[in-house]
Amino acid sequence: MVRASRTPGDSVHAARQQFGVLALALLLLAALLLPRPALAEDGYDLWLRYRPIPEADAVAYRARVAQLVAPAATPTQQATRDELVRGLGSLLGAAPALGDTANVDGALIVGTPASSKQIAGLKLATKDLGDEGYRIRSVTLDGRNAIAIAANTDAGAMHGAFHFLRLLQTREPLASLDIREAPRTQLRMLNHWDNLTRHVERGYAGESIWDWHKLPDYLSPRYTDYARANASIGINATVLNNVNASAQQLTPMYIEKAAALANVFRPYGIRVFLSARFSAPVEIGGLKTADPLDPKVRAWWKAKADEIYKAIPDFGGFLVKANSEGQPGPQDYGRTHADGANMMADAVKPHGGIVIWRAFVYSHETPDDRAKQAYNEFVPLDGKFRDNVMVQVKNGAIDFQPREPFHPLFGAMPKTPLMMEFQITKEYLGFATHLAYLGPLFEETLRADTYARGKGSTVAKVVDGELHRYRLTGMAGVANIGSDRNWSGSHFDQANWYVFGRLAWNPELSSRDIAQEWTRMTFSNDDDVVQPVVAMMMGSREAVVDYMTPLGLHHLMGRSHHYGPGPWVEGGPRADWTSVYYHRASKDGIGFDRTTRGSDTVSQYARPVAAQFDDAAKTPEEFLLWFHHLPWDYTTKSGRTLWDELVVHYSRGVDKVRDMRRTWDGLQGKVDPERHAQVATFLSIQEKEAQWWRDASIAYFQTFSQRPLPEGLAPPAHPLDYYESLEFPFAPGNG
Amino acid sequence: MVRASRTPGDSVHAARQQFGVLALALLLLAALLLPRPALAEDGYDLWLRYRPIPEADAVAYRARVAQLVAPAATPTQQATRDELVRGLGSLLGAAPALGDTANVDGALIVGTPASSKQIAGLKLATKDLGDEGYRIRSVTLDGRNAIAIAANTDAGAMHGAFHFLRLLQTREPLASLDIREAPRTQLRMLNHWDNLTRHVERGYAGESIWDWHKLPDYLSPRYTDYARANASIGINATVLNNVNASAQQLTPMYIEKAAALANVFRPYGIRVFLSARFSAPVEIGGLKTADPLDPKVRAWWKAKADEIYKAIPDFGGFLVKANSEGQPGPQDYGRTHADGANMMADAVKPHGGIVIWRAFVYSHETPDDRAKQAYNEFVPLDGKFRDNVMVQVKNGAIDFQPREPFHPLFGAMPKTPLMMEFQITKEYLGFATHLAYLGPLFEETLRADTYARGKGSTVAKVVDGELHRYRLTGMAGVANIGSDRNWSGSHFDQANWYVFGRLAWNPELSSRDIAQEWTRMTFSNDDDVVQPVVAMMMGSREAVVDYMTPLGLHHLMGRSHHYGPGPWVEGGPRADWTSVYYHRASKDGIGFDRTTRGSDTVSQYARPVAAQFDDAAKTPEEFLLWFHHLPWDYTTKSGRTLWDELVVHYSRGVDKVRDMRRTWDGLQGKVDPERHAQVATFLSIQEKEAQWWRDASIAYFQTFSQRPLPEGLAPPAHPLDYYESLEFPFAPGNG
Repeated sequence: MVRASRTPGDSVHAARQQFGVLALALLLLAALLLPRPALAEDGYDLWLRYRPIPEADAVAYRARVAQLVAPAATPTQQATRDELVRGLGSLLGAAPALGDTANVDGALIVGTPASSKQIAGLKLATKDLGDEGYRIRSVTLDGRNAIAIAANTDAGAMHGAFHFLRLLQTREPLASLDIREAPRTQLRMLNHWDNLTRHVERGYAGESIWDWHKLPDYLSPRYTDYARANASIGINATVLNNVNASAQQLTPMYIEKAAALANVFRPYGIRVFLSARFSAPVEIGGLKTADPLDPKVRAWWKAKADEIYKAIPDFGGFLVKANSEGQPGPQDYGRTHADGANMMADAVKPHGGIVIWRAFVYSHETPDDRAKQAYNEFVPLDGKFRDNVMVQVKNGAIDFQPREPFHPLFGAMPKTPLMMEFQITKEYLGFATHLAYLGPLFEETLRADTYARGKGSTVAKVVDGELHRYRLTGMAGVANIGSDRNWSGSHFDQANWYVFGRLAWNPELSSRDIAQEWTRMTFSNDDDVVQPVVAMMMGSREAVVDYMTPLGLHHLMGRSHHYGPGPWVEGGPRADWTSVYYHRASKDGIGFDRTTRGSDTVSQYARPVAAQFDDAAKTPEEFLLWFHHLPWDYTTKSGRTLWDELVVHYSRGVDKVRDMRRTWDGLQGKVDPERHAQVATFLSIQEKEAQWWRDASIAYFQTFSQRPLPEGLAPPAHPLDYYESLEFPFAPGNG
Repeated sequence: MVRASRTPGDSVHAARQQFGVLALALLLLAALLLPRPALAEDGYDLWLRYRPIPEADAVAYRARVAQLVAPAATPTQQATRDELVRGLGSLLGAAPALGDTANVDGALIVGTPASSKQIAGLKLATKDLGDEGYRIRSVTLDGRNAIAIAANTDAGAMHGAFHFLRLLQTREPLASLDIREAPRTQLRMLNHWDNLTRHVERGYAGESIWDWHKLPDYLSPRYTDYARANASIGINATVLNNVNASAQQLTPMYIEKAAALANVFRPYGIRVFLSARFSAPVEIGGLKTADPLDPKVRAWWKAKADEIYKAIPDFGGFLVKANSEGQPGPQDYGRTHADGANMMADAVKPHGGIVIWRAFVYSHETPDDRAKQAYNEFVPLDGKFRDNVMVQVKNGAIDFQPREPFHPLFGAMPKTPLMMEFQITKEYLGFATHLAYLGPLFEETLRADTYARGKGSTVAKVVDGELHRYRLTGMAGVANIGSDRNWSGSHFDQANWYVFGRLAWNPELSSRDIAQEWTRMTFSNDDDVVQPVVAMMMGSREAVVDYMTPLGLHHLMGRSHHYGPGPWVEGGPRADWTSVYYHRASKDGIGFDRTTRGSDTVSQYARPVAAQFDDAAKTPEEFLLWFHHLPWDYTTKSGRTLWDELVVHYSRGVDKVRDMRRTWDGLQGKVDPERHAQVATFLSIQEKEAQWWRDASIAYFQTFSQRPLPEGLAPPAHPLDYYESLEFPFAPGNG
């Protein structure tokens, strides 16, 4: 290895020197090979993994980020700079030099005209960026190349910083940047259905991340990482507690605990909201009534709001579920939802707070069609709410089914800001173990055309305020976050949190693009990984629809816990809590007649939509049995009878899961072993449960259709009574 | 840096070569400095951290472990070798070379005479090591130094391997080893009070680590790490579910899930037991009765045992809580505990299983003194149990209080194997946030002298079988393990799991030595850390006794959840669930008269013990008010009145916590920042709560003593009604 040089002495000397260097090198090599505490890819880092960019690519990036000029005079500025140092340091092997002024080629300058002289000097137009938008622009400064992240506010600059990191994470080029982003909705909000017991209603990722007992003293580092993750996708609001709320949340002890969390989130531009129990004045206030027109009740809420704002000056306001599923509400006192909402709105108004009133209501009496009820109750109230009230509407009129047509309220309340409510947690799409990327579900709803102001009146345009010029806009997602190490119960469920945030920021984004972005950040930038993973994700929700609720069927799951198939569920306290109420299968056919000949739900939609849904031939087949009761031998678009088509869909759903498994198996070695193994196991569970859904559903519906299965399709593995006998008293997430 | 050699050409050449090596070295250095994903010390690794030994010390260790000769033909052998490779690799910088035969100086040879020819050839006496013991011995083999870990079984070799790793972890020398270890008890068992809902009764570390819903398919890597941790301290049995058991645990679905866990634990020498609900034959068996003498009931249990053993061939048996706190049991049918236990014992007997019957029972009627009840019910049954029944007895007669005298049953049932039940989870010692090392509590009980066979008849000798020649021996600990990242809810609570395991292996060990061992493995081998940390630990339990229940007081906590002080608790369903029942404070004095003049509990102890406890002057002061009701002006050993002494103890408890805080603050920089910060916060919570306990207790008892506080001691911060008004409806761990 070491060639002798001419004179022996020198040779020895040089060899010694070389040996010294070699020894050092070997020592370093040894040190490199030192086993470190195993760094399992356990998913904790989410999409903020910041794994090193391969050297070949890193060189070019480093040249573009040779220096970081970012102020750190405020908590938000500090958080922004910390994230850039952490992210760039990890991605590029070393954090760029920090400077007060850009003075080398390749500076990254971050800030607002107020926080940064150099940003101010660039005079980038930021007027249209609002309070949270930003620009990322390649600029020349004193003859040197630089990149500027400019915004009107610290929060905007922070969002820009996360966007910039994403460019590196997804291997986008940094030359000639000219990005201009501003959120299309004002409130981008998570709804935690977390109880003070730490049980999470419809949670499949462990227990609540809020360790209420140890608050306000102990602030888990996890709270900060939660804020970072949310800020990185633009989420700016969080409701800490379940809409089925405990009044205790509003006691001084719990206000203090909530304030401690608000303090952690504030630097990340995230405001805290609380779900308020309507009867709190009685339960914790010692009053005899919660009547919203009672002066004492009104005074109690005002005082309570004052108390909360004292502890949390930027408190967002209240989210309220009232007169729904047994919750108390203004109707208990003969008042309207508007009476209730307005009373609370008046209480928070002086502090700039708002009230978000949920439209998911239904009365004590079982209606002829529950799908109609929210519309019937709320449309008459349009225009009767205070200007700091929003009404929060689920994407569909039933309850977060694998597929629902868009909620008829969208487009029907021009004078009341409607907030979208999506469910990120997969209450009806297989809990944590089924891979179901919800991007296409969200996108399908947002792109649906309400025709409220003619063609092109999409739900997205209702939600972002464009259609009706709403003063307030927002989108809420029922969180899938829990104490599980990987936050969401499965690695792929992280994508649902991610896509919700991205679509709340801009409802016009493509769910496929977002899937790709997420996959690159979360798993790999290797196209051999990205392409198949995105393909799996994009097909996954349709697979669930197929094996659970094809052709517009809905609400067929097990009672209460909603685990597994339960098309036979009947009886109990309310007809509209059963499956038979929704599928209406009989010997003559299946489906819920919501046409003008039936419950007439269709008429809640704008005329062109109503006309389409009223006619089975024109109704998109994915909504067929949502709107129509059809005979088993009805001819579907494929030419097959309805019965055959149903069975084909059920079977196809299982096949799709099998395909996903095959795809994933092919990624072994390309994805880290820890996450690969967990996903593989979950897919095996999903296949088993998809088969169960298919077999149980077919076995059940066959008792009505009394027809054989289409040729080549296997009969259910067990007789119907086997499926009916299964019980799951401890299924997770039950309310 | 690079000196020129004589001829320019050569010089350049050599320089280039050197430069190449240097470049490599720099590259490696750069690689070393690459930020890696942050490795926070989050406690997940427990005492198996295996952080690298500083180079100065590592050299000598490496010479002693140059080669590893360990078979891997069975799952246990494989697990053993994996652990050695992992542990030695991490501690020493690189795993030793693996070899089939020791053929270098410094080999580590592991195995049994059956699994290893070289172990067989050494002819080390292993007869007295039993099924789980081992020897670790420095030997000479073909003229070369070696270390042999020899055992009769794979499990014994595994225990030896963990012991060997501990030697390195605690920096013990490896020269001239001659260690011989065998467990003093047969069953070293965790009792999980985990419900199938994943709620853990009296759990303060998140939810159950058993993710029942995803079992049997998904086997979290955490299950394996649980097994490793337990195996490392000799725990060889685990009861998966709460003694307040659900009958569902015995259904086929849950047996399959339990079997999946048993498969994970088996290689680590850990056997699964289940808590059985006595009424299961009715609840899931469709029988009309659970009468233990009913042939159908007996047949049901036999069939159920057969079914379980088919799924779990090495199933350990049943743990039963019957006729206690509302649980069903044989007395519901007019039968005795022996009738119930024997029926279940007969069912598992053919499979080699056992039944562990809990002595923590009390009848529906409130007794004159609950402390007497277990003795009264069980002593008459001595000799009436099958030979595969053990009776599990809590360390004290009430319920895991910060301090209790040893349970009078120890020594009183010579014909019935008694299993010790300690509580590792801190139900009564401050939940997860209070630092309370339970080693001294366990040790105090184990060293207590029952005098059952004369002086020296310690509880340890009862439990390890020496005193009565029990055929079965064991020790159970109610686990403090949950889903929290650090397993036990706090870093220091890991020590309680650890010390339980070590004492179960050998009840004669010193809790101080164990604390030291644990601190070295968990925090640091730096004496500047070890000494203060061990001092904190050793004083911590007495601090809790002082600020909660000094001088023999007991059962003074908040109702149901047991959080915080509640000396005023009275009323409710049972007198013996209140505080006033236990402290009996009045204007004339305080304490429970259990002397021969009172409830006569003392007579349940052997004569010398009874005589001591019967006389206030002879009763150790820490048990004073446990056995005696004394006037407020009773003169204590310090010369102070009882009232003053009480207040001094309460105050001293708070002071001790303040001291712990000071000590811990002094360790900043010597302990990693993540764990330092969490412990510091928890200590601040502990100080606040210690003050609360002191103040509330003093405020309450002062209403009886009607005496001023001793001079210089501060009055309570709030009036009594403030403390009485506090409510904690969501305190964790409530049953």
